[in-house]
Amino acid sequence: MSVQSTHVHVAGPVVDMARSPNAALRPVPLSAVRLHDGFWAPRIHTNRVVTLPAQLRQCEETGRIDNFRRAAGTIQGDFQGIFFNDSDVYKLAEAMAYSLATHPDPALDADLDAIVSDIAAAQRSDGYLNTYFTFERAPQRYTNLKDMHEIYCAGHLIQAAVAHHRATGKTSLLDVATRLSDHLYDVFGPGKRVGACGHEEAEMALVELYRETGDLRYLELARCMIESRGHNPGIFQNSSYHQDHAPFVDQREFTGHAVRHLYLACGATDVAAETDATGYGGALEGLWESLTQRRMYVTGGAGSRWEGEAFGADYELPNDRAYTETCAAIGSVMWNWRMLNLTGEAKYADLLETTLYNAFLCGLSLDGASYFYQNPLADRGTHRRQPWFGCACCPPNIARLLASLGGYFYSTAESGVYVHLYASGTATLPLATGGTVTLEQQTGYPWDGNIDVKVIENSGEARYLYLRVPYWADGASVTANCAPTTAEIEPGTYLKVDMPAAGTTIGLNLPMKIERVESHPRVIGNLGRIALQRGPLFYCLEQADHPGVDVWDICLPDDVVVSANHRQDLLHGVTVLQAEALALDTKEWDGALYSLYQRRWRSDMRPVAITAIPYYAWANREAGPMQAWLPVAPAPR
Amino acid sequence: MSVQSTHVHVAGPVVDMARSPNAALRPVPLSAVRLHDGFWAPRIHTNRVVTLPAQLRQCEETGRIDNFRRAAGTIQGDFQGIFFNDSDVYKLAEAMAYSLATHPDPALDADLDAIVSDIAAAQRSDGYLNTYFTFERAPQRYTNLKDMHEIYCAGHLIQAAVAHHRATGKTSLLDVATRLSDHLYDVFGPGKRVGACGHEEAEMALVELYRETGDLRYLELARCMIESRGHNPGIFQNSSYHQDHAPFVDQREFTGHAVRHLYLACGATDVAAETDATGYGGALEGLWESLTQRRMYVTGGAGSRWEGEAFGADYELPNDRAYTETCAAIGSVMWNWRMLNLTGEAKYADLLETTLYNAFLCGLSLDGASYFYQNPLADRGTHRRQPWFGCACCPPNIARLLASLGGYFYSTAESGVYVHLYASGTATLPLATGGTVTLEQQTGYPWDGNIDVKVIENSGEARYLYLRVPYWADGASVTANCAPTTAEIEPGTYLKVDMPAAGTTIGLNLPMKIERVESHPRVIGNLGRIALQRGPLFYCLEQADHPGVDVWDICLPDDVVVSANHRQDLLHGVTVLQAEALALDTKEWDGALYSLYQRRWRSDMRPVAITAIPYYAWANREAGPMQAWLPVAPAPR
Repeated sequence: MSVQSTHVHVAGPVVDMARSPNAALRPVPLSAVRLHDGFWAPRIHTNRVVTLPAQLRQCEETGRIDNFRRAAGTIQGDFQGIFFNDSDVYKLAEAMAYSLATHPDPALDADLDAIVSDIAAAQRSDGYLNTYFTFERAPQRYTNLKDMHEIYCAGHLIQAAVAHHRATGKTSLLDVATRLSDHLYDVFGPGKRVGACGHEEAEMALVELYRETGDLRYLELARCMIESRGHNPGIFQNSSYHQDHAPFVDQREFTGHAVRHLYLACGATDVAAETDATGYGGALEGLWESLTQRRMYVTGGAGSRWEGEAFGADYELPNDRAYTETCAAIGSVMWNWRMLNLTGEAKYADLLETTLYNAFLCGLSLDGASYFYQNPLADRGTHRRQPWFGCACCPPNIARLLASLGGYFYSTAESGVYVHLYASGTATLPLATGGTVTLEQQTGYPWDGNIDVKVIENSGEARYLYLRVPYWADGASVTANCAPTTAEIEPGTYLKVDMPAAGTTIGLNLPMKIERVESHPRVIGNLGRIALQRGPLFYCLEQADHPGVDVWDICLPDDVVVSANHRQDLLHGVTVLQAEALALDTKEWDGALYSLYQRRWRSDMRPVAITAIPYYAWANREAGPMQAWLPVAPAPR
Repeated sequence: MSVQSTHVHVAGPVVDMARSPNAALRPVPLSAVRLHDGFWAPRIHTNRVVTLPAQLRQCEETGRIDNFRRAAGTIQGDFQGIFFNDSDVYKLAEAMAYSLATHPDPALDADLDAIVSDIAAAQRSDGYLNTYFTFERAPQRYTNLKDMHEIYCAGHLIQAAVAHHRATGKTSLLDVATRLSDHLYDVFGPGKRVGACGHEEAEMALVELYRETGDLRYLELARCMIESRGHNPGIFQNSSYHQDHAPFVDQREFTGHAVRHLYLACGATDVAAETDATGYGGALEGLWESLTQRRMYVTGGAGSRWEGEAFGADYELPNDRAYTETCAAIGSVMWNWRMLNLTGEAKYADLLETTLYNAFLCGLSLDGASYFYQNPLADRGTHRRQPWFGCACCPPNIARLLASLGGYFYSTAESGVYVHLYASGTATLPLATGGTVTLEQQTGYPWDGNIDVKVIENSGEARYLYLRVPYWADGASVTANCAPTTAEIEPGTYLKVDMPAAGTTIGLNLPMKIERVESHPRVIGNLGRIALQRGPLFYCLEQADHPGVDVWDICLPDDVVVSANHRQDLLHGVTVLQAEALALDTKEWDGALYSLYQRRWRSDMRPVAITAIPYYAWANREAGPMQAWLPVAPAPR
C-alpha cells in the first residue's frame, strides 16, 4: 500500500507484516474481523462509547490538545503538563482510528479530523513537531534524548498516522508523520548523528511507516536507532536502564524500564521481519526466555519494580509491590504479536492470550471509566483504578489495544489460515494468493472451551486451517460436523486441519480444568503458594466475596475439590471458582510481628467457603484486600 | 553545663537527658565507660584507626570540605557534589569528637580543629551557614525547605558542635552552632514563619543545644518545628512522605521516608523529656507499636521501600528488596535510646540491642572500610558494601554511633544504676545524688550469656542495680558471688537487685537457646519460613559456607537439632549455627517459571550440612547468595 492509494476501503492490519519477507504469517486487515461475542464485543463497545469520549475530554481539560494549539500559535499561554504529553493525544488518535476501522462513526471521524488538524497546525516548517520543544524551548531540540521522550512522542505520532491512514485512507496525518520522519532521517539517519530516544517507541513506528509508504529510509532509520545502543561510548552512558548496556544483538536479558525494553523488542522484531538483520533472532529468543523463564508474573505482567518502573532481578516477582505497568502488558502483547507473525510459533500466541486476559485486562475497570497504572497481585484494598493520571500513558494505550483487538485474532499464510484467539464472530480473511476465507466462530470462550469454527466460504487456495490449542488444554479434542476425528492434538501448538469444505463446522474442545499453579522456588514470595487457573484466566480472592474473613488469611488445602460456576449476575458475568478452604486466626498473634515458630495443622484453622474471581475483575466493587497467590494449607494432623 | 564551662574533663553523655524533668533515667558521660571486650572494643578501635581517617580522606577528595573553603572565599570554583553534603562533614566531626572523648588523640584533635576552623570560616556574618546556599545561591535561602535539606544540615552542625563541646570542652564549633541557631530562631521561632525542614534532624539537635547551653529558645524552636507539621494548610502539602499529613500528636503510624520519621520521633521524644508536651506520649507509643508490630524487619531494620527510602504498608517487609537503610537503623537506635531514658522501660533497650547487633552492624564491613546503604535480608550476591557513596549519609552516621557506643551501656536513676548492654569493661557512673558507682563487666557476650557484674566501688546512695534481662532470655538466673539467688526473673524487664557491697560479683546467666522465629502470616514473603536467632543475633546462610548448593535452595526441617559452635577463625570470631538440612533440586524446573503444583516431600530433597553465620557478618567474603529467612522443609512422606 502506498501513500497514493487514498481510497482505501478495507482497513489495514494493526501491524502490517503482510509483505514482510521474513515473516511466517500475515496479519489480516482489522476490518476483516467482526466480533459479536459476550466477552470482547461489549468491552470494545464500552471502549468506543465510554472510554474514548472520556479520554478526549481529559485531553482537552488537561491542556494536552491546547499544547498543540499553543504551538500552532492559535492560543497563548504556557505549555501544560508533562513534557511527553503529546504522546497521549497521539495514542488516543490511534485508538480512534482503529475504532473507525471497525465501527464507522461520522462524529468520531470528525473529532479525529479536528485533532489531526490541531496536530498538523503545530508542525514546524522544517517538519519538526513536539509542542514542548517549541518557541522558548526550540533551542533545546534533541539536546537531551535520554530523558525528554522527544523521539518517543514522534513515534506515537507516526503510529497514529499509520493507523489513521489504514483505517480511513486519509493522508492528513500521514503527511505530518512523513514530514517529521524525514526530519528525523536527516538528523539521525545513516551517516548522521548516532542517537535514539531514551524511551524506545519510534523504532517500531518507523518500520510501520516504511510498510505504509514503501519509503526504505524509515526502515533504515529504525535500524540505525536500534543499533545506536550499547556501543562504546554509549549513547546513554551504557545505562542498562535505557538498554544502552549492550548492542541489541547481544542482549539476552530484559532490564531497566520495562515498557522501553519491550518496545525496543517490538521494533527489533519489525526490523528482523523486513531485513537480514543478523543476530536479531538470537537476541529476540534470548529476551523471550528471560521474560518467560525468569522475569514475568503468572498474569503475563512484566516489570517488578516501582523504582524506575523496571524489570527486577531473575525471580524477583513481589506480589503486593508488583509494578506490572499496564503499558508493559500492552508492550508484551504487541511484541508477542510480532513474534507470532514472524515465526508462526504458538508459544507467542499463548503468551499473548495470557497477557491479554490477565495483566492487560486488569488495567481497565468493567465500566470502562478508570484504569490501573500498576497491577499488583496482592493488595490490602488501597490500590484503586483512577479516571486519569498526570502521567497518562496507560489509558490511551488500553484504548488503542481494545479498539484494534479484532486484528489479533487471525493471520494467514501461504498454506492456509491461522486462528489465534477465540470469540464468537465472523472474519473474511484475504489470502496472499488471492481469494478469501470466511470463518464464523461460535463459543462461550473464555468461560467455555467448546469452539465451533464454521467455514462459510473459501474462494482461494487455503489448504489448511490452523487452530491454536493453548498450552493448558490437556485432553483437547476436535470434531468435524459433530463427528469425532482422530487428530493428534498437542497443547501449545496449532492443530493443522485440512481446510474443510464450505459449510463444515470444526468443533474444538479445550477442556478447562481448574489447575493449581506453583512458581519456581526462587520466587521467594510465592513459596508454599498456588495460583488458580482455568482456561486462559488466573484467579484471585477478593474481600467483597468473603465477609467475616480477611482473604489474606485464607489457605487452600491442596487436595480439596475446586468447582467452576458461571455467575452471569456477577462482574458483568464471570465463571467463579469455589471451594471449601481454611482460614488462619491471625488474632492469635495479638499484635506480635515475630514469634517463636510453631508448626500449624489444618485443625488449627476454621473452614471457610471461598469464591475466586478472575484476576482481571478485581477492584470493581467495594475496596478490600485481594490475593492471587494462595497459601497451601498445612497438612492434616 | 553551660557554654561558659570550657574546661570540661569528663565528656558529657551522647544525649544529655541527665537533667530532663520528665526523663526516668539519666544517660551517663561517654568517658565514664571503658569497653575492653572482644566484640565492640575492636570495632571501636577499627572505627578510630581505619574508618575515621578514611572518611576524612573521602570528605577531602570529594570536595566536601572544599565546599566550606569555597564558602569562606579561600578557594575558588563551583560547589561540589550534592546540596546536602555539608551534613557528612558535620557527622564525621561529631564522630571524631566522640572518639576524642574516649580515646584522646592529639593528631585527631588537630584534624578536628582544622575542620572546625574551615566550618567556622564559612559562616556568614548573620549566622547563616550552608555552603550550597552561599554566593550565587544565597537568594534561595529557605525557599525550598521541603527538598533542599537546609535545616537538616544545620541540625547536623549543631549535633557536631554539642558533641565537640562535650568531648573537648572547646567552644569553637559550639559558637558557630549557637549563631546559626539564633539565626534559625529569628526566622522560624515562635510567632515567626511556620516551617521546618523536609528532612527532620534539627529538632533533636536543637534540644541538645538547649541542654548544652541552657538557652530555652532552642527548645522552643525545636517544638515549633515539630508542631509546624500536619496542619491545614500543611507546610509540605500535607505530604505523609514528609510527615506533614497530621500533627505530630495525632501520628500513630510510621510513614514516608524512614530516616526522617525516625529522626522526628527522636526530636519529639527530646521535647517530651523537657516539656509538658501534651499528647506526645500517645504519639510516641503509637509510633513504637507501628514500628514493632507491623513495619519492622526481624533485624530491627526499618523502611521497606527502595522508592523514597520509605516505610511500606503494614506487614510489607520484602527480603530481597528490603531497603532498610543503615541510617534508619541508626535512627531507631537513637530513638529507642531516648525512649528508654524517658520511660525506663526495658522494651526499648531490647529493641536498641536487636537493632544494634543486626540492622546497624550489617552496615559496616569487618575491616571498617566499606558500608551498606541498604541491608537486604536475601540477596543473590550482587549487593556489596562500598567504600563511599555519592549520597554518603550512612558512613559517617555509622562512625558516630560506633564512636559513641559506650554511652549506650548504662544509665542512672534516683534509685540506682541501670545496665542496658553487656560487654566486658569498666564504668564509673556519677549519681545525681552525688558519688559514683564503679562496675566491671566480664562476659563473652554476645556469644555467651554469662555476665559477671562486679561492684568495684559505690561512693553514693545507689540502692539498686538494674540488670536488663533480654526478651529472649527464658530461664535466666542470677548468682551473687557464685551463690544461687531466688530472684524472680522475667525476660523483657530489668532485674532489680539490692546494690551489692563493693567487691561483690553478680552473675547473670542468660541462656542463649537457638530459636526458630516466624513472622506474622501477613508478611507474605515469610510464609513457611523461619529465622534463626541466638541471643541478640539473627543468622543467615551465606554461599561461602555452602559449596555445591545454592543457599536459596536450602530448607530447614522444623524438628532438626541446630547446634552452636564458636569459630574464632571465622569472620573475626563468630558463633555459627549448624544443622543437617535439605536442599531442593531446582534443576528439575528446567527453565520453567510456573508449573502445575505438586506436593513435595522431604524424601524429594537431598541432605546438606548447613552453617549459619550472624546476619551482620555476611558479604565479608566472596560474593554469593544469602538468605536469612529459611523455608521450613516439607513433612516427611
